[in-house]
Amino acid sequence: MKSAPTAQFLEMEERCFLIDCGEGTQVQLRKAKAKFSKINHIFISHLHGDHVFGLPGLISSFRLLGRETLLHVYGPKGIKEMMETIFRITETHQGFEVVFHELSSKKSEKVFEDNRVEVFTIPLDHRIYCNGYLFREKPKERHLNMQEISKYPEIEICDYHNLKRGKDIQLSDGYILKNENLTKPAEPSVSYAFCSDTRYLESIIPIIKNVDVLYHEATFLHDLKKMADYTGHTTALEAAKIARKANVKKLILGHFSNRYNDLSVFLNEACEIFPETYLPEQLEAVKI
Amino acid sequence: MKSAPTAQFLEMEERCFLIDCGEGTQVQLRKAKAKFSKINHIFISHLHGDHVFGLPGLISSFRLLGRETLLHVYGPKGIKEMMETIFRITETHQGFEVVFHELSSKKSEKVFEDNRVEVFTIPLDHRIYCNGYLFREKPKERHLNMQEISKYPEIEICDYHNLKRGKDIQLSDGYILKNENLTKPAEPSVSYAFCSDTRYLESIIPIIKNVDVLYHEATFLHDLKKMADYTGHTTALEAAKIARKANVKKLILGHFSNRYNDLSVFLNEACEIFPETYLPEQLEAVKI
Repeated sequence: MKSAPTAQFLEMEERCFLIDCGEGTQVQLRKAKAKFSKINHIFISHLHGDHVFGLPGLISSFRLLGRETLLHVYGPKGIKEMMETIFRITETHQGFEVVFHELSSKKSEKVFEDNRVEVFTIPLDHRIYCNGYLFREKPKERHLNMQEISKYPEIEICDYHNLKRGKDIQLSDGYILKNENLTKPAEPSVSYAFCSDTRYLESIIPIIKNVDVLYHEATFLHDLKKMADYTGHTTALEAAKIARKANVKKLILGHFSNRYNDLSVFLNEACEIFPETYLPEQLEAVKI
Repeated sequence: MKSAPTAQFLEMEERCFLIDCGEGTQVQLRKAKAKFSKINHIFISHLHGDHVFGLPGLISSFRLLGRETLLHVYGPKGIKEMMETIFRITETHQGFEVVFHELSSKKSEKVFEDNRVEVFTIPLDHRIYCNGYLFREKPKERHLNMQEISKYPEIEICDYHNLKRGKDIQLSDGYILKNENLTKPAEPSVSYAFCSDTRYLESIIPIIKNVDVLYHEATFLHDLKKMADYTGHTTALEAAKIARKANVKKLILGHFSNRYNDLSVFLNEACEIFPETYLPEQLEAVKI
């Protein structure tokens, strides 16, 4: 049931997010040459050691590196007490503020939003209170088609903002110029869902519907379905079912029990249900 | 001022001790193929992250490996509250008992003793309450010289115990057989002193006098003496002075600041004062 500690570094619209922080995360981040100091938001799924025991060390290292920027940590109720006890007893005095956002709702909620990205919780079903996280880029602005726009001297620079947001333009004679004739499509907005650790749970499907990439734990193969249920985990076959029902584009499996030496068995089992399944190599940067 | 997390695995008289437990210790122990599950006593010098943040993960792993044996943890006051808070919030329920021995004395004290080994604290001077530890094998039994013993039929098996412990034998005619004529010397009793983190501190000299191996931190070279004092650390030159004044057999330096790429400078500085100085390679097993 033991797997390597979990941590994922997600870069989205120039924001750097860390999802979970198992022991040794800071070493892995350095090896992967991730933009360590640009992490301003850390999302912890649940308070089991393999998902959170790297957090005290990471925060200490931020301090040693002279960090001054506010750090936001999202995680289950209890994370604040645990971290503040550790900071107090180890006399760790950050030169920066750590704001803990404690979660206890069993419904999906928006936990972060800025002008380009939103993050929602995905309530999961594990042995301990646990959330996945959905990262969603907001709709992007359409690109102005200057060649077309220049044909209508009546369109002014102050109209560009509305055009980029997809609005039509009404000329003074009442004629309506369709937006799609004056602009080119925006870049697609990417979405990423992280679901670990959890039993097979269909209630997550509407939340993660159509995401570009779903990371879903698959601790066991389906012949150990009973063990998966007992320990609060999912099988590869079940993760693939979730991916298919949610109509995601790609599925990445992870959190494999260390009883398996050859991980291709996970891929084989999942691909029968959902062919667009991938195994992550540790530290591999996955570009969506 | 940052160095790699500290942890040392010490095997003495078939006992396995762990000294300090920085983040990632369990991974390093596995890499070094140390007798992981045989660790029954963990000694923590001080509650800074690089010396203790690996402890929650190590204890969790013990649980996952099905450990049932009592575990003793020795460390500064506060370690119990910190660890128990972590266990409670992460819902880590060991199948074995962890006994915390909290230390707060500023005088050296015996913290562990069994029939073959004793462990004493070495009060140090760091930014936070800190102890080194002295591990000392008890005097061993002398070996019976059966060739000599057999010349005296009057010596019985029940005398062997006293002979092994160095006592002379008085024959019934009053003649005294000298122990050294009936036995061969015992194996030497080995001692090891661990001193980290600390400023240069002469009060440790009587405690570590004549030890076989002294591990002493040397975070800086002596040109950064002011920095060493300010941050509560020792220079290589100072560690060598301590080794010389304590008449130890070997000195091992460690806890180097990561500002130094080439560690041979530490060896050069220390060897001028104390030639029997060594650098540990990480994970290298040092046989005393």
